[in-house]
Amino acid sequence: MTKKEKITFNISKEKNFSEWYSEILNKAEITDIRYNVKGFTVIRPFGALIIERLYDLWESELQEKRHKPCFFPTVIPEKNFKKEAIHVKGFSPDVFWLKPIGEGNLALRPTSETAFYQLYSLWIRSWRDLPLKLYQRANVFRLETKATRPLIRAREFLWIESHDVFATRKEAEAQVQEDISITEQAMHQKLGIPFLALKRPEWDKFPGAEYTIGSDVLMPDGRVIQQPSTHLLTQGFSKSFNIKFKDEKGKEQHVWQTCYGPAMSRILASLIAVHGDDSGLILPFCISPAQVIIIPIYKTKNKRKILKKAQEVEKKLKQENIRAEIDDTEKTPGEKFFFWELRGIPLRIEIGEKELKGKLTLFLRDTKERVKVNLTEINKKGEALDKRLKQKADKNFKNAVVDCKSAEDVKTALAKKKIARCNFCSISKKGEKCAETVEKKFLAFVQGILHNKKEKAKGKCIFCNKKAENVVYIAKSY
Amino acid sequence: MTKKEKITFNISKEKNFSEWYSEILNKAEITDIRYNVKGFTVIRPFGALIIERLYDLWESELQEKRHKPCFFPTVIPEKNFKKEAIHVKGFSPDVFWLKPIGEGNLALRPTSETAFYQLYSLWIRSWRDLPLKLYQRANVFRLETKATRPLIRAREFLWIESHDVFATRKEAEAQVQEDISITEQAMHQKLGIPFLALKRPEWDKFPGAEYTIGSDVLMPDGRVIQQPSTHLLTQGFSKSFNIKFKDEKGKEQHVWQTCYGPAMSRILASLIAVHGDDSGLILPFCISPAQVIIIPIYKTKNKRKILKKAQEVEKKLKQENIRAEIDDTEKTPGEKFFFWELRGIPLRIEIGEKELKGKLTLFLRDTKERVKVNLTEINKKGEALDKRLKQKADKNFKNAVVDCKSAEDVKTALAKKKIARCNFCSISKKGEKCAETVEKKFLAFVQGILHNKKEKAKGKCIFCNKKAENVVYIAKSY
Repeated sequence: MTKKEKITFNISKEKNFSEWYSEILNKAEITDIRYNVKGFTVIRPFGALIIERLYDLWESELQEKRHKPCFFPTVIPEKNFKKEAIHVKGFSPDVFWLKPIGEGNLALRPTSETAFYQLYSLWIRSWRDLPLKLYQRANVFRLETKATRPLIRAREFLWIESHDVFATRKEAEAQVQEDISITEQAMHQKLGIPFLALKRPEWDKFPGAEYTIGSDVLMPDGRVIQQPSTHLLTQGFSKSFNIKFKDEKGKEQHVWQTCYGPAMSRILASLIAVHGDDSGLILPFCISPAQVIIIPIYKTKNKRKILKKAQEVEKKLKQENIRAEIDDTEKTPGEKFFFWELRGIPLRIEIGEKELKGKLTLFLRDTKERVKVNLTEINKKGEALDKRLKQKADKNFKNAVVDCKSAEDVKTALAKKKIARCNFCSISKKGEKCAETVEKKFLAFVQGILHNKKEKAKGKCIFCNKKAENVVYIAKSY
Repeated sequence: MTKKEKITFNISKEKNFSEWYSEILNKAEITDIRYNVKGFTVIRPFGALIIERLYDLWESELQEKRHKPCFFPTVIPEKNFKKEAIHVKGFSPDVFWLKPIGEGNLALRPTSETAFYQLYSLWIRSWRDLPLKLYQRANVFRLETKATRPLIRAREFLWIESHDVFATRKEAEAQVQEDISITEQAMHQKLGIPFLALKRPEWDKFPGAEYTIGSDVLMPDGRVIQQPSTHLLTQGFSKSFNIKFKDEKGKEQHVWQTCYGPAMSRILASLIAVHGDDSGLILPFCISPAQVIIIPIYKTKNKRKILKKAQEVEKKLKQENIRAEIDDTEKTPGEKFFFWELRGIPLRIEIGEKELKGKLTLFLRDTKERVKVNLTEINKKGEALDKRLKQKADKNFKNAVVDCKSAEDVKTALAKKKIARCNFCSISKKGEKCAETVEKKFLAFVQGILHNKKEKAKGKCIFCNKKAENVVYIAKSY
């Protein structure tokens, strides 16, 4: 990178989100799109360090909720897919196949229901074996034909998939709620990314599910992006794969199932898009690879003293389990400021002659303020920053939902990068025609209805004028 | 599992290692071999929990040595492979290919040199960009035609691959040493698994390397298994992939490279094989998913008091960051003892009426002793157990190497499940014929010469009678 390049990042996130996003991925060294296969992206160290922390966050939530890890093969025989008729129909177009090696057709997993459930039918015998709650950290593959975008829509991506099994429908439905609460805890409470938990319309659910709850996050260009979704599979797969258990009375029954799939690379995309500003990323304190960057500002005569102080500060922060780093490269302080602001490190400690004695100077990445602090306050400042990020995102998200009384209103709302809320005939099969109208007219989608709050429709569908059964959310989408 | 099955594990590891190994993987629920594609194994939760810790162990060693993580695509274009002539020749027979999707032939990575180095040629410009030390945690694929064995030889396995780049040959050679020291630290010092760092003969090195240092671990059946290997690639790949940098004088030069590949699933195989006994696994305290299992032993009348005590003990251990768990299932104490001994949990605390007041009863999995301890001594007892495991394995390994003066000696040593050490003509190309003799006569292999200690050959090769250049190690191998 030449010096000139270094100081030129200044793209308006609001006006040119698409350009901003591409440039930030490149300049902050999150991804490299120059790998020579379409739709496959290289994730560079700075991106990988964040993704590792996202994995930690989700895996600890899952383990706390009594899930255990496992690893299934990447390849799935075609005959497994064929066992569940709706599933195979939904996924077949997206599958990468291996050249035959003499054992029937083998797919690269697009998702692993048909790998896991074959073994589940061997492992589960009795009510004592339930619930069974397993997840795997895995790469999955989808032969996307739409345009791909790094982290957002790729032909290979990094995710977690959990596959849970219960004795009753009631427990399975409770698991769907628990999955939503994991998303709420990890994505909203920790990372400060708000979302709508929407029950998808009949025509947009997971192939093989009774229903799907998606988590829609608003991107700065007004399009929503689906984050972790959870699916009530009921007994469809358990019947196809013959997963049965003997209940306490000795009666044989099919199990009830759910699955849940947070994609780490997509969550990173939202993390970048929701919190970033025109100077670059803003990473929450809780997830940032370095939480505090220490910049020594010296001249030749006080260099030794200042570097020593910087090392003391780093040592003390590390003792408090704060991830601190000194930038002692040969760059100027200005270049260092730019570099670490671009990468979104939440807190910066500047140490010059003044700071040798008195309080430290702390730069807050989100508000760009400089404040004087004691070393013991750093953690609190980091937590406060995360709170501000969340509040700002929450406020923005709340303002994004607009009630619409007509198709015209919907058009206006979407043009203003908002999410439209309106009366709609039905998210059951019979509403599909109106959804097609929405897609054709506005290039937008009926995303679904609120799952955890009953919003009662009054009056008529604003598209077909029939009685409205649902209040739906309509948005442009990734 | 029926009660009868539970109490029948008793296979002699020494006499029937192969049966012992298969049974232990199954009974301790490490793997399941019933997945319906040859050579692809399911890793069950207990195995996955150990593998996660192995990843942590290696990744922290790598990060401490200034490596950073990244993620590269699983698919590699055929044209990338073809860039390095020796590499493509070495790996082509082992490659899984995708059915064409219109972008040239794509392979599932068997290893990722040809994916990484294409990007390295874009990332590296100046001496300031060096050294570049990256690794990825990944699954890799090899179309094994030999018989596969779970964790040992599979068509998909879980590993780490690091790819390091330097300005000079000297630094690259120092990295090979650092890689060996990472293996020493993680595998030998922490996990207690001794190994020989052997420089492989010319005909057995990594395709594309100047030399390869393998880490040979002795399995109980007398066969060695290759654990992490490190390769000095010198400038072969940097010339094929055009990876150049400007040195401090502005002169353009090709970089020097190394790579290193620890396979977590294979290391788990050695961990099981080296430390286990006829009652099952023995896991080192430092790596065991549960370090301490607490078994409450009660009758109806004292059940409440004893469970309360068990919970207090668990809580206190957790406060000391010790991974403790209570087994409060409905099984009998005897069944629980069996279950957790089979799984190799290093320490067991038994809490009955006597333990309510006095000292705790601690069962040591390796020696099967019961000792009286205070709660504060648990960590020390765990560390002492790890030390005993290591000492035992070291002693066994040291006794396994036998000096041989003739082909007959070699035969005898191998029959006794030992490693033969002898004078050998040469591990350079000209010795290949003698190595073929060894393979034909003894079904064994010339594994190489000590890398870090010069063992000087005196006299003649015991096979061809020509002047011996090397002292080699010969063993049966996996």
